[in-house]
Parts: sequence; C-alpha cells; structure tokens
Amino acid sequence: MIIYSNFITSESKDSLKTYENHYLVCENGIISGIFKVLPEKYKNLQITDYSNKIIIPGMTDLHIHAPQYSFRGLGMDLELIDWLNTYTFPEESKYNDIEYAQKAYSSFVKALKNSSSTRACIFATVHNEATIMLMDMLDKSGLITFVGKVNMNRNCPKSLCEIDAQTSIDNTREWIESASKFKNCKPILTPRFTPSCTDDLMQMLGKFNLPVQTHLSENLSEIEWVSELCPDAENYADTYYRANLMGNNSIFAHCVYCTPKEIELLKQTNSYIAHCPQSNANLASGIAPIRHYLDNDINIGLATDIAGGANISMFRAITDAVAMSKLYMRLVDENAKPLSFAESFYLATAGSGSFFGKVGKLEKGFSFDALVLDDSKLENINDLQLTDRLERIAYHLEDRAIYAKYVNGIKI
Amino acid sequence: MIIYSNFITSESKDSLKTYENHYLVCENGIISGIFKVLPEKYKNLQITDYSNKIIIPGMTDLHIHAPQYSFRGLGMDLELIDWLNTYTFPEESKYNDIEYAQKAYSSFVKALKNSSSTRACIFATVHNEATIMLMDMLDKSGLITFVGKVNMNRNCPKSLCEIDAQTSIDNTREWIESASKFKNCKPILTPRFTPSCTDDLMQMLGKFNLPVQTHLSENLSEIEWVSELCPDAENYADTYYRANLMGNNSIFAHCVYCTPKEIELLKQTNSYIAHCPQSNANLASGIAPIRHYLDNDINIGLATDIAGGANISMFRAITDAVAMSKLYMRLVDENAKPLSFAESFYLATAGSGSFFGKVGKLEKGFSFDALVLDDSKLENINDLQLTDRLERIAYHLEDRAIYAKYVNGIKI
Repeated sequence: MIIYSNFITSESKDSLKTYENHYLVCENGIISGIFKVLPEKYKNLQITDYSNKIIIPGMTDLHIHAPQYSFRGLGMDLELIDWLNTYTFPEESKYNDIEYAQKAYSSFVKALKNSSSTRACIFATVHNEATIMLMDMLDKSGLITFVGKVNMNRNCPKSLCEIDAQTSIDNTREWIESASKFKNCKPILTPRFTPSCTDDLMQMLGKFNLPVQTHLSENLSEIEWVSELCPDAENYADTYYRANLMGNNSIFAHCVYCTPKEIELLKQTNSYIAHCPQSNANLASGIAPIRHYLDNDINIGLATDIAGGANISMFRAITDAVAMSKLYMRLVDENAKPLSFAESFYLATAGSGSFFGKVGKLEKGFSFDALVLDDSKLENINDLQLTDRLERIAYHLEDRAIYAKYVNGIKI
Repeated sequence: MIIYSNFITSESKDSLKTYENHYLVCENGIISGIFKVLPEKYKNLQITDYSNKIIIPGMTDLHIHAPQYSFRGLGMDLELIDWLNTYTFPEESKYNDIEYAQKAYSSFVKALKNSSSTRACIFATVHNEATIMLMDMLDKSGLITFVGKVNMNRNCPKSLCEIDAQTSIDNTREWIESASKFKNCKPILTPRFTPSCTDDLMQMLGKFNLPVQTHLSENLSEIEWVSELCPDAENYADTYYRANLMGNNSIFAHCVYCTPKEIELLKQTNSYIAHCPQSNANLASGIAPIRHYLDNDINIGLATDIAGGANISMFRAITDAVAMSKLYMRLVDENAKPLSFAESFYLATAGSGSFFGKVGKLEKGFSFDALVLDDSKLENINDLQLTDRLERIAYHLEDRAIYAKYVNGIKI
C-alpha cells in the first residue's frame, strides 16, 4: 500500500519530523519507508492520495474505563474515593445485566472506534460475561486493545465484590480461557487498585504471565488508606512490586504523588506510567510530575481515563497535559519545565504506543497505525506550517479532524 | 413571542432552576414569564416549539481579543510578556492593513456569532480604521458587544505605539465619534494594561465617561514590572484606581495574584473581574482565587481570552473554571472549595451578563438572550435529568449543541 500525503511523527521525545508531499509505503501492516521520490520497485502499486491532509501516528490511550463511558461528563463534584462509591461502583454494578452491558459497551466501542485512539488499554468490570462481550466487540472493531476483567475482593459493594481471592483467581482463569479466541483484543490482568485487592489476591495474580494494569498514587486519601491497609509494605508501589506485578508489561495509572523510592521502582522495573491530566484535575487529585518522569527516561504515555476524564479524545489529553505541566511549574516546582506540544504529542503516540511494541511512529519497521486528518474546515487566515496545522487541530478540531483511520495497515 | 421547551437558568449563584415543558413569553425582547400553563391572554399568539431541546441564557464572554483569533491554538510555549512580544504584537501590527483586518475580523465575527456567546467585551487593536470595521461587522451580526480600540503608548513595537498620550487620546476621541453610529456595538475604553500606558495617558482616559476594560495582575513578571514602572502607585490596581478607571463599568481581566488591598479596591468600586481559566493555564500564569471572589460578592464573570485561551466556547470556559478551581484547592489553598457546575454556569451567564444590565437569566424582566441546545447526537444510555443533560453538553458538545440563538428576543 502506498499513501501520498503530508506526514508528521515524533523524531525524538521532544522533536517532530515532517514530510511534506511524501509517499509512505506499507507492506503487511508495517511501514517500509517514507519517500520524497517513490523508489522504482514500488512504481506499479496503486497510490492512495491524501493530498492536503495530514497523517500522524495513531494514538494509544493507555488507561480508560469502558463501563464508565456511560457517565462521562457527569458527577464532577467529588474526589476519588467518594466518587468511586457514589458514581462509579453503582454504575459498574449494572454490568451484571448483560443487556445493559450490550447497550453501554456498544456505545463505548463505537465512540472509541471514532476517536483518535488506534490502540487502548481498557478496564472492564469484575463481570466475566460482560467483559468477554466487550472484548468481542473490540476485536471486531479493528482497534488493537488490551482489556482487563477487574479483580476486586474488598472495600467495594457486594454487587462487585468477589467473595475471596481464590474465587477472583478462578474467575480470572475462566475469563482468560474465554478470551483466547480473540485476535486484536488481548487480556490484561487488572487488580483495580490496592484498596480493592487483598494481599493474597495480589500474590496469586503475580503468578500469571500476563501484562498488568492498575492504579498508583492518584489521590492523597487513597495513599493514606493504602498505608493503613498494608502497614508492612514499604510504600504504595511496593504493594504491587512485592506481588511481582511491576515490569515492562505493567501500566500504573496516575502516579501523581510517587515518592523518590517509588519512582526508582518504576524505573528499575521499566514499568509504564499512564498520565491522565484531565482526570487528575477533574477529581481534584493534583498534577503528576511529568517533566521529572520524562527526564528520567521512565516509560510514560498519555491516557483519557474516562470517566475521571470527561473526554475520549487523545488530542484533548495532549493539550491538557501541556496546560497541566504549566500549572505544575507555576504552582508546584518552578524548575519543572512545561511540556512542549511536541513532547505531549510524543507521549500520546510513541510514548503510549511502545507498550504495544513498534507502535506510535511513522518510521520504517513500525506498525502502520495512522490518523488521516482533515483541517479544511478550520479557517486559517495566515499560511501555516504543517506542525502549526497539527497544533491547531489538537486545540480546535480534536477528533473531528479524523478523515480516515488505519490500524496495522488496515483502514477501519 | 412564545417558546415551548425545557429551560434552565441560574436561580442563585450556586443553584440552577429548571422548567420542564414550559412556555416562555417574550415581549419586545424582554422575558414576561415562564409558565407551565400558558395564561389566557397569550393564547392567540404563535408558539415556537423546541420540544426535547434545552434552552439556557446566552453567555457573555467578558474578555476576548478579536485580532488574536487568527493565531488561536498556536504559540503556546511562552509566558505573558514574551508571548506578547513574540506572537501577539507582531500579529496585531498587521491590522494596520485594512485588507488583512477585513479577512481576519470576518473570520472572528463569524466564529463569535456561531459560538455560545450572545454578548462580549472585545479588545480590538490600536488601529481606528480596523476597529471601526470590526464594530460594523459586529453591529450587523446581531450580537451585543462592547469593543475597544486599544490605547498603548509605551513598551510596544513602533508599529503599535501611539507616539504620546495626547495622540492616543485624539485617536480615541475620533474613534468614539465614528462609533456613535452603531446600535448593538458600543465603544469601551481599553488601555491595554499598565505597562503599555503612561500615567498621563491613564489620567486622560479617566476623564471620559465610558466603560473600561483592561488587564490586572495576570502574571508574576508583569506585576513586578508594573511596580517598577509605577513606583508611586500603592499596587497594580492603584495604577487604574488613581486615574479614575475603576468602577461598576470597568472590567479587569485575570486578577490571578491580587493582594487583599487590591481585592478591597475591586469590591469597593464594584469593578468586574473577568476570570479566564484556560488562558491562565496556557500562559502558565496561575489560577485565580475564584472561590474567594465569589464568596466576597465581587462582580465576576467568565471569559475565553482568545488567544491566551485557545477556545472560543464559553462552555469550555465553564468546565475549565471548574477544573482549575479544583487544582487551586489541591495545590494552593485547601480551604477554597472548588466551583460547582452550577456556580461556573452562573459566572458565564448571569455573572458576566450583569455587566450589560438585566442579562444572563431566564427570568421576568431580563433580556431574552438564549441558546437553544440540541443534544440528540449524544448517546445517553441512562435517563438523564435536564441539568445532567446540560452538564454533558458542556463537557462533550460545547458549541456544537447550539441549534438556535436569540439575542434581545431576536433570532440571529
């Protein structure tokens, strides 16, 4: 497949590379190269012409809750723990009803498919049947995803609480078995967060050989609670580390208040941080020290965290991350240089994407995940460079700029 | 005119009132009442049916720069003073060219007309001819606006600098004279901010009997600079106060770092604060202490501050104000309770609107400025109350929900 257009990709963590009117060649879903002049050997292949459009790598949403899509943009008046008890747990309890799940997950999958995300790491609920249904819908959507049936066996309403660790593990095994049939949607272990999971459940989950997603250090009361629940753990991160749940296949959402020791653990284990800037503002959690994580070469990506975050667009996550990093510099640490647009774009594409392998750049050897963007409806009075057009899309059109979407070389 | 629909308006600073399936009667642009059962005397009038829609008061953008619309969403990497010198002043210099102004202001007026704002207080540039052209376009748009030709006679590039105070005043008189022909668009004195205006210019402006708009205490370096420029002023606010520029017809944008004495001045004089949450984040200015202003009954409204703010939607300003107030509570003052959605909605409608008189509520005696909102394209899995539908529109559809718009009883 050959595509003629304008391309923008991250070249490094803090710089963008543009290719104006170039040819991108993709073979079996993998990018073979981007050329100003099409090499002779490709001359007979058909060219898809996206002149005047802008093509960027698809984005990876590293942390999103599928069952919470149904109450996005509502209930913005509480902090984390109260928010979970008041809005989230009652809503997630409804997914025991497969008809409700069908309706709600259809709406979520449709929205995710139309969004700027080509890949995502998704929390479902504790329910096996609804989770498999969600995975089936996602598998068919063409998106590439990890989905987790949530584990929780304490501190939650009866309707969501697995009665003991062994039951939770049995459910997990059964779910993994059922999920083995999917091609584009893979299971990821999902202990909700330490307050929801007993130590023995964590230990048992640590024996699986699967990727992991969970929460870490989002909110001050949560952190305090974890220290009460796990008095023998060295810190919050240690509640996962000692259960063998940290590593380069593990994603920790938020990390707003990590201590130096926890940051060292994240780095040592090559774990991923999912930065959720809008959610951290909406739930009054705070602002994560992203400059520090970036400069320390910790694996980090961006996420919407629906419904803590109200918006499913990763463009919005990009501009929110920039804005929040400025307030962090102003209000928390004046030495923490704000994120540039290029850096935030990197986090949403290559940063998050690397969790899936060679994903998130338009570069030889990478999967061709891409968004074809149309900004013709934006009135630009002045001539703009390609990167300016992209920045303006991020601030103004967000996902409404999407003209076409490719995942692994396939138009979805 | 009679409209049948669902109505939501502020009842007080922190509560919303809803009218489900009611009749609103409007006579000569003024609301006569909202009725469950239409009174006999109106029975013969024609009814406009907006069933299933939601009607809210039109919003007033209390601070927006028309010439900066052309670079909205670009140049987000600098703080105020560098941002002015690098992006803003070069762009504003172009409005000396009336052809450029024509093109750029057409685009701005079209955008404002399609936005959630029914009224606005607008900065133009220092140029009389372009400013009159802008006012002419706005006058014809049906929106009700104040527009200011900017005064600036120091610390700016030659292309924008009026050579002395008297020249600036002469230009101002000439502009006011030319603007007297407009009906919906009125002149407002606009000394850019203290660093741009000499003391004598301020004094001379204070002798006009017109409303005033300017900036106050946006950025730490700016505040430091003002104290150097005006060593004899008691504080930044005093540079306006001593020139007779404060009062209930004066708007001060930002007020991020006002001291107790300045806050006292703002309150004493019944001056207005224009809160610009997104701009204050984008330019790394900080977060204004809105809870404090609200609780002290200071006149305050919301604003987009294009292009410090990237988005022209007042819905976005509402949700940004809520989010920023949460971060203020978390990072600056734990006693400052975050804004509720109802409070932020109040700021955007009744708070800002009161600068124009009885504007910003759907209540007997108020101007019928209104937005008819259509949220049918939002998939709502659960039944939602009217106020939930409104909150979701604010977070998800923003101005894209606008189905029709009324100003002073006229559909525009």
